Amino acid sequence: MPPTIDPARLRRRLEELAQIGRTPEGGVTRLSYRAEHAAAVRLAARWMGEAGATPGVDAWGNLHGLVPGAEAGLPPVAAGSHLDTVPNGGIFDGALGVVAAIEAAQALRDAGAHLARPLLLLGFAEEEGTSFGVGCLGSLAVVGRAPAPETIHDHEGVTVAALLRAFDPGVARVPLPPAMAAYLELHIEQGPVLASRGVPLAAVEAIVGIERAVFTFRGQANHAGTTPMDARRDALWGAADLVAQVRDLARGTEGRAVATVGRLSVSPGATNVVPGAVEMTVEIRSAEVPILETLRAAVEQAGRTSAGRYELGLEMTAWRAEPPVPLDGNVRASIEQAAGDLGWPIMTMPSWAGHDAKILCARAPAGMIFVPSDRGISHSPEEHTSWEDAARGAQVLCRTIERLAA
Amino acid sequence: MPPTIDPARLRRRLEELAQIGRTPEGGVTRLSYRAEHAAAVRLAARWMGEAGATPGVDAWGNLHGLVPGAEAGLPPVAAGSHLDTVPNGGIFDGALGVVAAIEAAQALRDAGAHLARPLLLLGFAEEEGTSFGVGCLGSLAVVGRAPAPETIHDHEGVTVAALLRAFDPGVARVPLPPAMAAYLELHIEQGPVLASRGVPLAAVEAIVGIERAVFTFRGQANHAGTTPMDARRDALWGAADLVAQVRDLARGTEGRAVATVGRLSVSPGATNVVPGAVEMTVEIRSAEVPILETLRAAVEQAGRTSAGRYELGLEMTAWRAEPPVPLDGNVRASIEQAAGDLGWPIMTMPSWAGHDAKILCARAPAGMIFVPSDRGISHSPEEHTSWEDAARGAQVLCRTIERLAA
Repeated sequence: MPPTIDPARLRRRLEELAQIGRTPEGGVTRLSYRAEHAAAVRLAARWMGEAGATPGVDAWGNLHGLVPGAEAGLPPVAAGSHLDTVPNGGIFDGALGVVAAIEAAQALRDAGAHLARPLLLLGFAEEEGTSFGVGCLGSLAVVGRAPAPETIHDHEGVTVAALLRAFDPGVARVPLPPAMAAYLELHIEQGPVLASRGVPLAAVEAIVGIERAVFTFRGQANHAGTTPMDARRDALWGAADLVAQVRDLARGTEGRAVATVGRLSVSPGATNVVPGAVEMTVEIRSAEVPILETLRAAVEQAGRTSAGRYELGLEMTAWRAEPPVPLDGNVRASIEQAAGDLGWPIMTMPSWAGHDAKILCARAPAGMIFVPSDRGISHSPEEHTSWEDAARGAQVLCRTIERLAA
Repeated sequence: MPPTIDPARLRRRLEELAQIGRTPEGGVTRLSYRAEHAAAVRLAARWMGEAGATPGVDAWGNLHGLVPGAEAGLPPVAAGSHLDTVPNGGIFDGALGVVAAIEAAQALRDAGAHLARPLLLLGFAEEEGTSFGVGCLGSLAVVGRAPAPETIHDHEGVTVAALLRAFDPGVARVPLPPAMAAYLELHIEQGPVLASRGVPLAAVEAIVGIERAVFTFRGQANHAGTTPMDARRDALWGAADLVAQVRDLARGTEGRAVATVGRLSVSPGATNVVPGAVEMTVEIRSAEVPILETLRAAVEQAGRTSAGRYELGLEMTAWRAEPPVPLDGNVRASIEQAAGDLGWPIMTMPSWAGHDAKILCARAPAGMIFVPSDRGISHSPEEHTSWEDAARGAQVLCRTIERLAA
């Protein structure tokens, strides 16, 4: 009998984990290094133990659990995700990947599967970047790229160093094993693609790159009565024009990029004053470097066009760029084969959001499995994935581990 | 010899008044009921006395000075403007109308002009609405429409009642005479129309009406990465569309209306979140009721179109309406005749901003004279009107008084 995920236990455990930091709206608030996070680490460590792993917590609050392999000296196949949530987030984001990895280990153990390599179960801290302005902090620490914990703090000024000193999940302090043969992460898609296409699974080909710049249009603040329409240099006219152009440019890529103006502020911002300045952010995302480059240039040109059209000054900051990160092709092939072994359709897509896998791929060949998010909703109490889809993702994870660790 | 304004003394007095509340930038900050306002009232009261008027200050800090007429029992012809300024405002806004009225009285006296009616010189308090959120407070009090002085206060909570108790310009407390035969106000245009057309004078036909409403577009806040462009309900798309439509609708009136989106706020306002809601104000101004009505309906329809185009919800508040206020046709004819007497071209235009005359016309037939504002700039240290234009305006004011008081 092949290793088989227990869907009922997977659900029960996710629901139990969701009780830690439960909000009145039915969501979860589990901020890193706070009591809820410690309780979640303690619970997941207990489940790791039951699955045959030896749990430990590293210096950054990352939970890990090592299941020995049959052959000595091989680096482990790692699987997991993160245990923190955004405020009032959903119960699947991160938690699904951690619990599914534990369930996979349990299923492999229960089936007496013979794995040459060790299995490393992971539950990262502070993926969301909610508290300290740094996303994927736990995984960044694993690859040696985290800022010093004394230098980052929450909005009340409490440093990560102070929080880590007080962080006590009741699990042994053990460093993470230094090497990994591969890193696998099951995650909800957090977007509507799988749900709208009716495909239950995706193997992620890359984490999209993100480019951000601030555009400031400068006109002339003026009296909203005495200034005739043809004498106005209204900064909001330029900004509104750029909002439309950014949308249309991203739409023109036919799904290969997205672009967002999420922040826009008008100065002086009075009902009876013609806007003198508007500052807005433009964010563009794509998995493809040439698309990012083309779009970036097109948005800059659009900004100049908008400014010129209304006789405005325009300042653009440099683009803050996070390049796309391709995931490992061989690991993706293993994921696709695993789905094939199980007879389930699987598609390829980029991840439009960042994940621990984006960081971990600097350390190990990394792969991600997506399962559908109902209506694409995430970071909300309404976040939901059907229990069937969640179990299917866990089963593919289990089968991929089996393939990679054999 | 006809009564003739002394341009040098007009300038000297305006410059002397501008020293009270002088800012480092060359502007003036003279907030109502503060020490600078009291000093300005004291100085203008002295000049009124020199011009043959008996100065007094009413219970709301309005300065007035009555020059007796030759015939008994006739209500006076009133002329003036306001003595307060916006923070760091210009030296002409308000002050020109007060000083020009005094200069006109002086010129009439010096020329031994025979006036049947008394002349009432006025220097209103708190026209700008800077401190207490109520514009034209002094003139509202004259027509019995001011809020109770205990109920309005500055941003530090100091009530107008308390400020009035402490207000001591050293001028006798005397109520304003109850009746006026006419009210005349010389003011800078505060817009670019006269300057750009090269016309030195305007007789104001009406104070424009102002309508304001708040439009709120509601979409779906969502992840700026995982939400494909065609799955977005971005509230900013609708708002940007309405900004453009409002501009184009106002432009379509060919100078008969203006419209402004001065305030626009995006929620949640994060770089990486698709805007879920945008709240924006739309302000429209016109001197013509049918234009206001048409434009209001067109802007509402534009809002619905913008919302429909991007699958957004739309909430509109009721329009807060201040209807246009026509000024008196006979007084305007007198102003035009006065300019004609002096051989100067004069045009007719609406006032796109509010003025004391808008309030006073409830009490008396009112008229306004505009002189050009360089580049249309006002409420700024850069506000300027040539001394020649200022004197010309004062001379037309003087001649109009002579006609109306004869």
